[in-house]
Amino acid sequence: MPGHFADDLTAAIIDKHAPVCVGIDPSYERLPESIKRKFGDDQVAALREFCTEVIGAVAPIVPAIKPQIAYFEVHQSAGVKLYFDMIALARASGLMIIGDIKRSDIGSTAQAYARGHVSGENCPDAVTVNGYLGSDGLTPFISEGDADGRGIFILVRTSNPSGAVIQDFADASGKKFYQHMAEQVAALGRDSVGSSGLSRVGAVVGATYPDEARQLREMMPEQLFLVPGYGAQGATAADCAASFRPDGTGAIVNASRSVIYAFDKNPDVDWRQAVGQAAGAFAADVADAVF
Amino acid sequence: MPGHFADDLTAAIIDKHAPVCVGIDPSYERLPESIKRKFGDDQVAALREFCTEVIGAVAPIVPAIKPQIAYFEVHQSAGVKLYFDMIALARASGLMIIGDIKRSDIGSTAQAYARGHVSGENCPDAVTVNGYLGSDGLTPFISEGDADGRGIFILVRTSNPSGAVIQDFADASGKKFYQHMAEQVAALGRDSVGSSGLSRVGAVVGATYPDEARQLREMMPEQLFLVPGYGAQGATAADCAASFRPDGTGAIVNASRSVIYAFDKNPDVDWRQAVGQAAGAFAADVADAVF
Repeated sequence: MPGHFADDLTAAIIDKHAPVCVGIDPSYERLPESIKRKFGDDQVAALREFCTEVIGAVAPIVPAIKPQIAYFEVHQSAGVKLYFDMIALARASGLMIIGDIKRSDIGSTAQAYARGHVSGENCPDAVTVNGYLGSDGLTPFISEGDADGRGIFILVRTSNPSGAVIQDFADASGKKFYQHMAEQVAALGRDSVGSSGLSRVGAVVGATYPDEARQLREMMPEQLFLVPGYGAQGATAADCAASFRPDGTGAIVNASRSVIYAFDKNPDVDWRQAVGQAAGAFAADVADAVF
Repeated sequence: MPGHFADDLTAAIIDKHAPVCVGIDPSYERLPESIKRKFGDDQVAALREFCTEVIGAVAPIVPAIKPQIAYFEVHQSAGVKLYFDMIALARASGLMIIGDIKRSDIGSTAQAYARGHVSGENCPDAVTVNGYLGSDGLTPFISEGDADGRGIFILVRTSNPSGAVIQDFADASGKKFYQHMAEQVAALGRDSVGSSGLSRVGAVVGATYPDEARQLREMMPEQLFLVPGYGAQGATAADCAASFRPDGTGAIVNASRSVIYAFDKNPDVDWRQAVGQAAGAFAADVADAVF
């Protein structure tokens, strides 16, 4: 059956009462000492064990993970192999997967990316993309996902300080560039709305600007929002709530470092248990704010 | 010795009298029939042979190649291995390499990309990046290249039709978004200008809008321009000339499909010879327009 990313993720969120995903951003330097000792110089093997254990720890708690491919590409081809292997493992563990790849290119080149990252073997259920090149760069990612109902999240408003220098550029009416991008995203997603009322074409909207998130929620009523910025980047669950629809659907909040490195602040329990506890606390915190 | 990307590329361009690079965008479907027959179902092996032969054919003629990583990522980890292997081969063949990766992310994630693509093993001399996330997303690519003097090209004005919908968004003074981006790029590159007067921080400026390229040349006097759009995308050498400084330096024009698939239009010679001839004609055409 083909599926529809936004519908399926919405159902999984409700099922687990957890409108969150855990970002898999593995840095060798930050791994538990026990793993570093076990694998010595083989950093990729160490990352494999770490990711495998993290996926096992969070799979009962959250509906989805968001592997950040940059942390895999540090290790070039061996890291890329690990990225796709971990997607396969997560899927077998009942998780949905958002590949945070933020790719951008045009026409046949975007098509090539999409064949590798959307419709290829062990690809995630959705990927993030950058819209600076316009719809030429986006439609191939959508069309390669048609057969399996896969989704994309287009960068609209990022959660980092210097993003505003670029994204706040405003026209004569006061409309900002990220709002212009939001209009493009809403238009692009109109043809792929599922039974949840949400499109397979979603938006990345940082949690650190809740007033803007509320405006964007109105401008993009059919978009599923992927919301970074919780935890390590400073946003609270209340800030994140601005990205949801009134019924508590329409968004998924991500936390990465505050969950997967939770053992740093909780050294008295097994490190996997610390990760699982942090995932549970994160899910409960956001669920309480939105449901 | 550390080197400086813009200085070194400028010297290599003058040395070969060829202000051009050849884009390596290998699609299995478009390979010569002789290669498809030889390798059967092993598409990556076929691409390896094709890229190896193309690099050999163009190395005496042009100063640089621009591998487009999307065409390698189609084949996931095996393709990424081939990408880095081909960079090593090109370097051993005396070519400079611009990795067309158009990555974009922030902070520690951008740092991870940069460690994989700028300062890691067999990395290219420069990479393309997307500036939508602001300087947070760009400085890691610059700083990881400090030790080897490596460069970046930031997307400013792309050569595709729908790019204008995004990039022409204008403020009250009429300044367009891509011009706003150009100002950021000029500021970001100010601290890394070499003896050529050009910065290690360059800009991607499509050839299909020569009037805009002339304006951008004035706004970014210290930027090396990477100019796509020649050939298959419709721009002429005269269009491309708008991106150069009056002395004929300051830009490098890329052509991909019109060179590497030149055998399609020249079936009477060995395919490698057709590629070499097309590279030579391309280099001469642009050199005549700018020198």
